[in-house]
Amino acid sequence: MSDNTAILLMHCPDRPGLVASLTGIINEGGGNILHLDQWVNHEENIFFMRIEWNLAGFTVPRERIGEWFETRFGSRFGVHHSLHFSNERPRMAIFVSKMSHCLYDMLARHAAGEWRVDIPLIVSNHPDLQPVAERFGIEFRCFPVTPENKAAQEEAELALLRDFDIDMVVLARYMQVLSDDFIRRYSNPIINIHHSFLPAFMGARPYHAAHARGVKLIGATSHFVTADLDQGPIIEQDVVHITHKDTVERLVRKGQDLEKIVLSRAVTKLLDHRVLAYGNRTVVFD
Amino acid sequence: MSDNTAILLMHCPDRPGLVASLTGIINEGGGNILHLDQWVNHEENIFFMRIEWNLAGFTVPRERIGEWFETRFGSRFGVHHSLHFSNERPRMAIFVSKMSHCLYDMLARHAAGEWRVDIPLIVSNHPDLQPVAERFGIEFRCFPVTPENKAAQEEAELALLRDFDIDMVVLARYMQVLSDDFIRRYSNPIINIHHSFLPAFMGARPYHAAHARGVKLIGATSHFVTADLDQGPIIEQDVVHITHKDTVERLVRKGQDLEKIVLSRAVTKLLDHRVLAYGNRTVVFD
Amino acid sequence: MSDNTAILLMHCPDRPGLVASLTGIINEGGGNILHLDQWVNHEENIFFMRIEWNLAGFTVPRERIGEWFETRFGSRFGVHHSLHFSNERPRMAIFVSKMSHCLYDMLARHAAGEWRVDIPLIVSNHPDLQPVAERFGIEFRCFPVTPENKAAQEEAELALLRDFDIDMVVLARYMQVLSDDFIRRYSNPIINIHHSFLPAFMGARPYHAAHARGVKLIGATSHFVTADLDQGPIIEQDVVHITHKDTVERLVRKGQDLEKIVLSRAVTKLLDHRVLAYGNRTVVFD
Amino acid sequence: MSDNTAILLMHCPDRPGLVASLTGIINEGGGNILHLDQWVNHEENIFFMRIEWNLAGFTVPRERIGEWFETRFGSRFGVHHSLHFSNERPRMAIFVSKMSHCLYDMLARHAAGEWRVDIPLIVSNHPDLQPVAERFGIEFRCFPVTPENKAAQEEAELALLRDFDIDMVVLARYMQVLSDDFIRRYSNPIINIHHSFLPAFMGARPYHAAHARGVKLIGATSHFVTADLDQGPIIEQDVVHITHKDTVERLVRKGQDLEKIVLSRAVTKLLDHRVLAYGNRTVVFD
Repeated sequence: MSDNTAILLMHCPDRPGLVASLTGIINEGGGNILHLDQWVNHEENIFFMRIEWNLAGFTVPRERIGEWFETRFGSRFGVHHSLHFSNERPRMAIFVSKMSHCLYDMLARHAAGEWRVDIPLIVSNHPDLQPVAERFGIEFRCFPVTPENKAAQEEAELALLRDFDIDMVVLARYMQVLSDDFIRRYSNPIINIHHSFLPAFMGARPYHAAHARGVKLIGATSHFVTADLDQGPIIEQDVVHITHKDTVERLVRKGQDLEKIVLSRAVTKLLDHRVLAYGNRTVVFD
Repeated sequence: MSDNTAILLMHCPDRPGLVASLTGIINEGGGNILHLDQWVNHEENIFFMRIEWNLAGFTVPRERIGEWFETRFGSRFGVHHSLHFSNERPRMAIFVSKMSHCLYDMLARHAAGEWRVDIPLIVSNHPDLQPVAERFGIEFRCFPVTPENKAAQEEAELALLRDFDIDMVVLARYMQVLSDDFIRRYSNPIINIHHSFLPAFMGARPYHAAHARGVKLIGATSHFVTADLDQGPIIEQDVVHITHKDTVERLVRKGQDLEKIVLSRAVTKLLDHRVLAYGNRTVVFD
Repeated sequence: MSDNTAILLMHCPDRPGLVASLTGIINEGGGNILHLDQWVNHEENIFFMRIEWNLAGFTVPRERIGEWFETRFGSRFGVHHSLHFSNERPRMAIFVSKMSHCLYDMLARHAAGEWRVDIPLIVSNHPDLQPVAERFGIEFRCFPVTPENKAAQEEAELALLRDFDIDMVVLARYMQVLSDDFIRRYSNPIINIHHSFLPAFMGARPYHAAHARGVKLIGATSHFVTADLDQGPIIEQDVVHITHKDTVERLVRKGQDLEKIVLSRAVTKLLDHRVLAYGNRTVVFD
Repeated sequence: MSDNTAILLMHCPDRPGLVASLTGIINEGGGNILHLDQWVNHEENIFFMRIEWNLAGFTVPRERIGEWFETRFGSRFGVHHSLHFSNERPRMAIFVSKMSHCLYDMLARHAAGEWRVDIPLIVSNHPDLQPVAERFGIEFRCFPVTPENKAAQEEAELALLRDFDIDMVVLARYMQVLSDDFIRRYSNPIINIHHSFLPAFMGARPYHAAHARGVKLIGATSHFVTADLDQGPIIEQDVVHITHKDTVERLVRKGQDLEKIVLSRAVTKLLDHRVLAYGNRTVVFD
C-alpha cells in the first residue's frame, strides 16, 4: 500500500460500462490507478470493485472525494460504497477472556509495525490477561458478565468503545456471546475467530465435538459477527490435519496455532480494505 | 509390503505387557516382525495394534495362524482382530451413478498395478458409465432404482455381490442411499466418498450449500457406510481453498479432484490393512 | 465460460488510462464484458490483462477482432496479446513414456467432457502405454530414442505434430529431454510436469534425492518447457507432507497423485486462457 | 505427557526381538508403558524407538535408569540413546537479530505455559529487540559481530551459554552464520529456521530468489544446525501458496507467519522428545 492513496470498495447492480466509466472519471481527475480488482456475481447480477489510486496529483481534495464519487458515479448506478485512505490509522479494541494466543499474536504484529492500526483498548470478562496488556502498555478493562448484569455491562462496554473512539472490534477468543442489542447498537465491524471449520461444530466446545466425531482435520474460521451466532459472513478459514492420536488436549494445542493465524489474516485483509460483506458472504480481493 | 507376510489388526482392553507378550510369541515362532504400530486410547483404555511379520521361517502354517493367535493371545486378553496376508487379492465392487471421475481414478490405479485388488464388477443405477466399464473389460450391471423397486433391486445386488464373491464395496459417487437392510445384510466393508468436509453439509447438494454459506474451503470425506447417513467412521478427509469467484460449477470441478484423491487414499489404506474402525471413529496406522 | 465469447490476454508498458480505454472501445462495439482481470507489475511497470466479452451483439465480426484490437488499441500502447474464442477446440498431443497416471487422468477428463480440447495423438518413446491409447481410441505413435537417432526421431515427431495440426504439447511424465532444436522449432506451447517442488531437485530422480535429503514434504511443478531444463516459467505447484516412514517407493506413490493433479490443473488453466508467461514467470488469472 | 515419566529415544542395528526384550525388562521393573513408537529403516537396517513409561511403581530409582538401561539392554545391542524425564525443565537460549515475529511467538507460548522449558537468555547481534526481552523480563545480551571480532564474540557467547547452563539454542531469525568452531564446541542441540523450503533457495535472501524464479509457493524449514550451512537434518517444513500478485514485501509478510509456526512446531517436538537425528535426516515420532 502506498503512502497517500484512496481506496474505494463498492458494489452495485451490474450493467455495461461501469469499469470504463469509473476509471474514466478517476483518470479525468488526475488519479493514477494503482490497483483495480473487480468481479461480477453473474447469478445475482452484482458488480463488485476495489480500486486504489494515488492522491498525489488528484485534483479533488481528499475531504470532498466521497461527495465527488457519489455525485459523479454512485448516485447514477445505485452504488453502496466505503471510502478509505491508506494513511489513516483506524482504532481497534480487542475483546479477550482467558486464552492469550490470539492476543499475543495481534499485539506482536502491532508492536512490530506490521499493521497500520492503533490498539488503545483491551476488554475482557476475566482479569487473567491484564498482565499481557500491561506488558504492551495498553489499557485493560474488565467487565465480568453474569446473566443478571449482562445488559448493564454491555452498556458500559458500548460507552467505553465510544469514549475510545473505536473503529473496529476483534473478538480474540472472547468466550461470551454478545447480545443482539449490542451488535445492533455498535455500528462498526466486529470480527470473531471460531475454533472450527464452520458450519461444522457451531457453538461451544468444538474441539470436543471434533474429537467425538473422529474427523481427520480441524479448522478455524474468522467471520463478521451478526445477530445469528456463528452465522456471519466468513472472511477466512483454514484447517490442519489430525490423526487418531490427537487427544482433545492436542487438538486444542494444534488448533490455537490455526486460530491465531486465521484471525490475523482476516484482520490484515480488513485493514488493507480488501473485504466486502454482502448478504451472508464476503468478497475478499487478493 | 513384502510378498509373504501376515498382518494382524487388533484391539483389546489395555493392560501392561501386551506388546511384550505378542512380540514374544511371534519371535518364538520364528516370525521376523517388519512393522509394528501400536497406540493406546488412554481415555477409553483400549489398546490398538497393527503388526506385520514375515512368514518365511515362521513355524505356524498359514492356515493355522488365526487359531494359533486366538489360543496363544486373543482369548487371554479379549482381543478383536482381523488377520490378512500380503499376497491375498481381495475382490472389490464399485458402485457408481453418472459421474466418472472417481471410477476412472480407481480403474487407472488398478490397471497400472498400483493396488493389489481384483475389480470384477461395477454396479450402477444408471447406464451412463457402461462404456467406461467396457473400456477396462469389467462386468457392468445396471439396477435402476425407484421407490417401488428399491427393495427388490437391492436384493438382486446382494445376490450379485455373493455370486461375484465380493470382499468390499466402494461407493464412487453412487447417488442412491443404501437401505439399512442392505447395510445390515452385507457384512463386508462398504466405503463412501461424500463431497463435503463432514459433518458440515451432510446430505444432498453439498456444493450448493457451501456456495450459499460462503465458506472459504470445500472438502471431501471418505467414510465407512453405516445405517446413519454420512455418519460412519471417517477414514480420510481433505479440503481445498476457494474464493468468492468460485461459482457452484467451479466448486464441482475443484471438488471432483479432491473427491477422487480422498477416496483413492482411503481405498489404498484399506487395502494396506491400515484402517481399524471402532465405535464411530477410526485408527489409521501410517 | 460462456458459449460465444472472445478472450484477450495481453501485456504492455503500464500507463494511465489503459483499462478505461480498452473497456471503452469494447463497450462501444456492443460487447458485454463478462470477466476482467488486470494486474500491474509496479516493479517492472508492466500492465497485464485478461478480458472476456460476449460476442452476441458485438459489432466487429469475429475474424476481424484481432485486426480491430491491433488498430484501435494494441499498436497505440505496444501491446503483446493473444486472442482466443471460447468455442474453439484446440488440438493437444500428449507425450508419455512408461508411467500411466498422468495420461489416464487427462484422458478421463477428456472423455468426461471436462475440457474443451481434442486429443488426437499420443507420442511415446516406449510401447508400454499403447493399450491405454487404444482403450480411448487415440492414435499412438512410438519413437524410441537413442543418442544416435534422436535428431531424426525429433524431426519425425515435428512432422507428425504438423500433420496432426497440434496446438499444444503436454509432456505427461515423458522421460526424454527435448532438444533445444525441437523446442525452438515447435512454436506452440509445451508444458511439462516435474516431480519436485522446483527449483529443488532439478534433473533426474528427484524422489531419490528428496529421500536422501530427508525433506518433510515432496512436490510437483508444472511449467512451460524452454531450452533451459526445468527452468521454464512455472504455472502450478503443490506439495504433500511426508514422514521418515516414507520409503522412496512410498514417495513415488504419494507423488504420482500430486503430479497428475498439478499437471491437470495447469492444463485446465491453459485451456481456460488464464495463463500468461513473461520472462521466466507467469501471471495466472484466477 | 504425564507428570512423572521416563522417555527413552534410541536407535541401534535392527534384529529380531528388540521390542519384546525392551518392553519385557520395563514391565519386569514395574514400569507401565504409556507410549511406544518404533520404526525400522529396512534400507539401512536401523531400529528406532521412542518409549515412555510411568515412573510411579517403577522399581529402578530415577538416577540409576540410564545405567540400568545400558546394562540390561543398551550394551547388548549397540544402542545410541538419550534419556529424558517429563518433569525436567530444560533451559533454552534464543538468538535473534532484528525481526521479532519468531521471538514473540516463542515468548508468548512460554508465558502461557504451553512449553515445559525455561528461557533465561536472549542473545542478539543487534540491540533492536532488547525492549521485547524486557517486556518479558528476560536477560538480553548484545554481541555485535564484525569479521574482526567474530571469534572473540563467539567465545564470549559460548562462555555465556555455559554460565547460564543452557541445554538448547534456538536461532529465531538470527542473521549471522555461526562458525564451525562454535558449532563443534557447543555440544547441545542448535536449531534454526530458514525462510525457504530447503533445499531450494539456500543462503541469503530466499524471498527475493523465490520471487525472481516465479515459484507458486514459498516455504519455511526448521533444521538442526551443523557445520554445513542450511544442510542440517530437517525437523519440520511447510509451505503457503502465493500468486503473481505477491511482491517481495508480501512474500516476507506471508512467510513470517510460516516461519514462526514451523519453528515453534519444531521446538514443541524437540521439547516433547519426539525428534531423533541420524546422519542427515530425522525421525520425528508423532
